[in-house]
Amino acid sequence: MINRKSAAALIIGDEILSGKTLDTNTQTLAKHLVRMGVTLQKTETIRDSVDIISEAVKRLSESHDMVFTSGGIGPTLDDLTYEGVAKAFGLNLLKHEATIARMHEIQPNLVLNEARLRMATLPEKCDAIWTGGLWVPLVCVHNVYVLPGIPRLFSSMIESIPSDHFGDVPPRERKILWCDLAEGDLAATLDKAAKEYDVAIGSYPATNNDSKKLYRTMVTVEGDEADIVIAAAEQLKGALNARYGTV
Amino acid sequence: MINRKSAAALIIGDEILSGKTLDTNTQTLAKHLVRMGVTLQKTETIRDSVDIISEAVKRLSESHDMVFTSGGIGPTLDDLTYEGVAKAFGLNLLKHEATIARMHEIQPNLVLNEARLRMATLPEKCDAIWTGGLWVPLVCVHNVYVLPGIPRLFSSMIESIPSDHFGDVPPRERKILWCDLAEGDLAATLDKAAKEYDVAIGSYPATNNDSKKLYRTMVTVEGDEADIVIAAAEQLKGALNARYGTV
Repeated sequence: MINRKSAAALIIGDEILSGKTLDTNTQTLAKHLVRMGVTLQKTETIRDSVDIISEAVKRLSESHDMVFTSGGIGPTLDDLTYEGVAKAFGLNLLKHEATIARMHEIQPNLVLNEARLRMATLPEKCDAIWTGGLWVPLVCVHNVYVLPGIPRLFSSMIESIPSDHFGDVPPRERKILWCDLAEGDLAATLDKAAKEYDVAIGSYPATNNDSKKLYRTMVTVEGDEADIVIAAAEQLKGALNARYGTV
Repeated sequence: MINRKSAAALIIGDEILSGKTLDTNTQTLAKHLVRMGVTLQKTETIRDSVDIISEAVKRLSESHDMVFTSGGIGPTLDDLTYEGVAKAFGLNLLKHEATIARMHEIQPNLVLNEARLRMATLPEKCDAIWTGGLWVPLVCVHNVYVLPGIPRLFSSMIESIPSDHFGDVPPRERKILWCDLAEGDLAATLDKAAKEYDVAIGSYPATNNDSKKLYRTMVTVEGDEADIVIAAAEQLKGALNARYGTV
């Protein structure tokens, strides 16, 4: 039995809840955590409010090994994540000199007005993980990782977290089968395999947006033990009208 | 002061948490709720587990006027939403004759095996809202609306909910400004306007994926009172290098 870390994601921003923005950071994070062998247990999307952020950060931090936040660290008054994280742990906010130094170094022409200095005003005693070419710090407070909402920054910065933060365990083994059968016709076979092997089996009907054209159902077989997953997938492939694939 | 209903969304499925699928249903729901004048307060994404679904449904149902679930109502063993919703309210699951009748009528060639009958085994005493051309019911239990995860079904079915369920109130007024200024340079002006008018102001830097090319920051001005929102947006438009737009 591999001891995997558990994670939660906290997506912060009225723009997601009002439909102005499609959140893609959850999927970016989810894919990275799979690669790092961590189990993403849940995600929450919440409004820009210090009290709501603080409550969610505290609760998720206590119930998961790692918490990743997205959004709310810009220069305007609706950016409240640092304040919410500080409140969750009873910390003050302080000017972070290393961030200010990097602002000067990386963007020498940036006017350091009050609004921009808010972006360098961080929970005291936080750690900062730096990403090449960016002055925005990935702020860590206890087990909480604070990331920006902008997808290209989120994506680069998540890659900069050293692998030992995730526990250095191998990813779960995953096999994908593409089937020409409808989900309702293969359910009994999947149920039988799930009971016979120690694997998690998922099945997903093709949707409008799928790029793989020649299937009706995607079946995933996952587990910690590679040989068991492979055996279960082989057995299913024989029992169903299926071929292996990748996503 | 308009009395708006509050809503929460519960996205159910390991495929979202493992990054296999990008959730777009949250945005579809969010946009619809904006049009219907309802405030989406939070969303959660959780694993396929009866206990986890049941806990989340009960808690969100008690704290919000409406709860919308997405996913977990297919024919396979990882589809546990009806079971979770029934458990949340202490209800039994029963064969739903109207759904079976519609299966026969709309898809006469469908083999009604045990797996497919699971899709017609619903929490007792539930209401069903029908969508033209589909046999899948939109199941309502108290204030919980149970929807499928497949985006094209989710989208059609959400449109079939009668408008009086949402409280028949007008949407919040929203104005969008596209600005050539960087977020850090316009923050002080936005803060001043937010204090002067009773409006919510959001600002969002342009990202890689934006289709509007000629701006650096999108500013949104929202509120219940149309004339106040318009006045605040006009004042901002004058103070910033901005033009009105739509999203």
